[in-house]
Amino acid sequence: MSWNRRHVLSLADFTPAEYDTVLQTASSFREVLTRRTKKVPTLQGQVVANLFFEPSTRTRSSFELAAKRLSADTLNFAASTSSITKGETILDTAKTYLAMGTDMMVIRHKEAGVPQAIADEMDRLDVKVGVLNAGDGQHEHPSQALLDLFTICSLMDVEQPRSTLLKGKKIAIVGDILHSRVARSNIWSLTASGAEVHLAAPPTLLPKEFAAFVKESDPSISRQLFIHWTLEPALIDADFVMTLRLQKERMTSHLLPSLREYHQQFGITRDRLKLCQPDVRVLHPGPVNRGVEISSDLMDDPVLSLISQQVTSGVAVRMALLYLMGGGKVG
Amino acid sequence: MSWNRRHVLSLADFTPAEYDTVLQTASSFREVLTRRTKKVPTLQGQVVANLFFEPSTRTRSSFELAAKRLSADTLNFAASTSSITKGETILDTAKTYLAMGTDMMVIRHKEAGVPQAIADEMDRLDVKVGVLNAGDGQHEHPSQALLDLFTICSLMDVEQPRSTLLKGKKIAIVGDILHSRVARSNIWSLTASGAEVHLAAPPTLLPKEFAAFVKESDPSISRQLFIHWTLEPALIDADFVMTLRLQKERMTSHLLPSLREYHQQFGITRDRLKLCQPDVRVLHPGPVNRGVEISSDLMDDPVLSLISQQVTSGVAVRMALLYLMGGGKVG
Amino acid sequence: MSWNRRHVLSLADFTPAEYDTVLQTASSFREVLTRRTKKVPTLQGQVVANLFFEPSTRTRSSFELAAKRLSADTLNFAASTSSITKGETILDTAKTYLAMGTDMMVIRHKEAGVPQAIADEMDRLDVKVGVLNAGDGQHEHPSQALLDLFTICSLMDVEQPRSTLLKGKKIAIVGDILHSRVARSNIWSLTASGAEVHLAAPPTLLPKEFAAFVKESDPSISRQLFIHWTLEPALIDADFVMTLRLQKERMTSHLLPSLREYHQQFGITRDRLKLCQPDVRVLHPGPVNRGVEISSDLMDDPVLSLISQQVTSGVAVRMALLYLMGGGKVG
Repeated sequence: MSWNRRHVLSLADFTPAEYDTVLQTASSFREVLTRRTKKVPTLQGQVVANLFFEPSTRTRSSFELAAKRLSADTLNFAASTSSITKGETILDTAKTYLAMGTDMMVIRHKEAGVPQAIADEMDRLDVKVGVLNAGDGQHEHPSQALLDLFTICSLMDVEQPRSTLLKGKKIAIVGDILHSRVARSNIWSLTASGAEVHLAAPPTLLPKEFAAFVKESDPSISRQLFIHWTLEPALIDADFVMTLRLQKERMTSHLLPSLREYHQQFGITRDRLKLCQPDVRVLHPGPVNRGVEISSDLMDDPVLSLISQQVTSGVAVRMALLYLMGGGKVG
Repeated sequence: MSWNRRHVLSLADFTPAEYDTVLQTASSFREVLTRRTKKVPTLQGQVVANLFFEPSTRTRSSFELAAKRLSADTLNFAASTSSITKGETILDTAKTYLAMGTDMMVIRHKEAGVPQAIADEMDRLDVKVGVLNAGDGQHEHPSQALLDLFTICSLMDVEQPRSTLLKGKKIAIVGDILHSRVARSNIWSLTASGAEVHLAAPPTLLPKEFAAFVKESDPSISRQLFIHWTLEPALIDADFVMTLRLQKERMTSHLLPSLREYHQQFGITRDRLKLCQPDVRVLHPGPVNRGVEISSDLMDDPVLSLISQQVTSGVAVRMALLYLMGGGKVG
Repeated sequence: MSWNRRHVLSLADFTPAEYDTVLQTASSFREVLTRRTKKVPTLQGQVVANLFFEPSTRTRSSFELAAKRLSADTLNFAASTSSITKGETILDTAKTYLAMGTDMMVIRHKEAGVPQAIADEMDRLDVKVGVLNAGDGQHEHPSQALLDLFTICSLMDVEQPRSTLLKGKKIAIVGDILHSRVARSNIWSLTASGAEVHLAAPPTLLPKEFAAFVKESDPSISRQLFIHWTLEPALIDADFVMTLRLQKERMTSHLLPSLREYHQQFGITRDRLKLCQPDVRVLHPGPVNRGVEISSDLMDDPVLSLISQQVTSGVAVRMALLYLMGGGKVG
């Protein structure tokens, strides 16, 4: 077990040992979730504040449930009814929750870097409060990439999910790469695990500069990251296909011709999966636009689609993260 | 004790034995609610998701409290901040909550049939998740009718509330029958219990076809169901008067002349109750438009009005339903 | 220990013994909050309903956390999704929560007097439900003034915070006095504790009638209350400076020239504090408009600013109030 982080903000500098620690911890919590009483007293009396400056249902519910299953108390903050509208700064809001006695903060914000800024402030104040990035702008969404990793690795070895299982695997990430924090976090976790990552999108959603930027950030991954402006080369012999949610607003900003044309060119269907490995599986972070990113029947396929498993993994992985950030001690 | 349902979606096919099971179970939970510590560990570690696609305060709070008093964890979903606005289908939202580990779903939706469709999907997936209809369009609101039944039967025999107590009783349901899911569910429970049900409303809110439709659905109740386009015949010798909430939108759609005229013709007042049995009682599902469906002083009458008891019954009945749906085992 | 109140609605008639009871009880709960498991079973199985007819994040979260740390179940009502929009009266909403089994109600409303009216109704119904005013219009916000008192007295004697510590101290309250429920509640608590209270604001936000009104309500405090239309006389030799939040709407109603001019005349800065006692401290109820009521660097000063301590005190003081209102018995 290797863990020395108070905050989980980005996967850019996660080590293989840290990935494995998350996978093993999540695996033990998954066992808890199969019991009738799906609850452990680990974080009893501690407070997890969900500060969602950007609206969310599924991610907030998943974190809330993870916290409750660790017996923590939860506070939910929704921007719509918040003091933000009264002119308070985000850092001041975070410091208010700190002063109330919050032990961990789960933060989503539409601007990249907000969770990092809050974590920096907590460190500056020298308080033992962990900050978890639940999605910041187009930057990162680490818990989503970790649950994707856990889902894939658990499929390959349910008893001992570990990142080395991905060595040499080909993984296609398809869709709106440019605007996707999910894609960014997954690029870090998948390449660090030894996989080959193939990005596929129309040029407007995957400019050349994107790959250049990622590769410059970490030259060691350059041999594992490939860019395609058509779908087929990404799918050929792929072991896993990750589709991304398409924000329908992209069309109004003229980045896309039409949803129908997008589906024809980049939508994942049963037929197109024939290009992949015979045991290929499909992932999607949800919520899904049926018939756009993925065909409706493929989404519902209980073998090919891992979408439900991803949601289930999400609770176990988030329990693991809160547990590790909280010091990994059983309360 | 007779109970074999995973879901509670409609009262149309409830048997007298099932009604009595709910009444007896609610009666035992009512005792819990008189203790200082109003809580039992029955559903400890289980998750009840309140999926309210239509806004609600009182019903959601009642279910939330019922779940908490059974020691369940609750997840609240409010449509206003939901992925629904992001294009996800309702079934996909329900499946997301399923995959997170939800044990029971309480669902309200403005369209009739949504809870049934979700329950069907859960059964198709062969998962042991119970679905409870907390109001679907103008279709049904079974927990409201069950709490009305519990309120009435408890008044008649607080120790042993049972549906046969209603045999031969006359019950008037007054108001916007046409648009009322509460009325529909009550018609099933009251006629099944042997009561005579008299519906009273202006013709625009109670078309002939309504009674014909109900009677065709279940010919056995035709001798117990009566329609009146004036108030008096429904009130004469009535044992209980159920008033319904009037949606003020009805006026703008020209179904009603004015609130004042409505009150003059169909509003329940102390004076009008003189037509009923001497020990008549009045019910209303709330929230009440004072001075429209019911006069303000009658609503506040501690003897004649059962409105507060209905709210109290609601928590006990919803505890009973969650308990029975959860297998009736003490956790 | 002196406590005989079911409700906490106003501080106008609080006795010194009652202030001390709150301070001592909060002090013992503060100790609980330093433990790893910051929770006591005091209100297990009881229900605290937060009825916030006016939106709030910080106060609602503070009460919710206080209730959870006493192991109570909480119900949150937010006006935006409520039956209020369906025409139900506020008293009927409160009675609905009563009938569900609520033990204590925490109420915020934009109209002065609403919590009092609800408390009167509970008493009329002869039910043992406590009502706590969490801010009513421009009237009072007693828990805020009590947490201010606790913050100040704890600074002076952390082991034994008591109101007599304030005897002879000079406290400046600066800002929008006219519209501030926080100022009103603080005037009662500070004068009752023997302090000299100096109000400072532009004449539009502090009309002569204000002081006259307060003094008439309680002639005994007239020698302790002073009004200033400039900042300096209030600051000279002050022991504590309370700044109030400035509602930016005040400008649009022409009560203020500009935020910049306001800050120049009444904003609290490090420089201006030189007029005060050397060990002066600054308070603010939050949320803060940085650079308006108070300069940004002063707000962040870990010695001069008590703003974080106020938030922390808030949880302890609200635990104390819920505990005392609940009968002060350990459950």
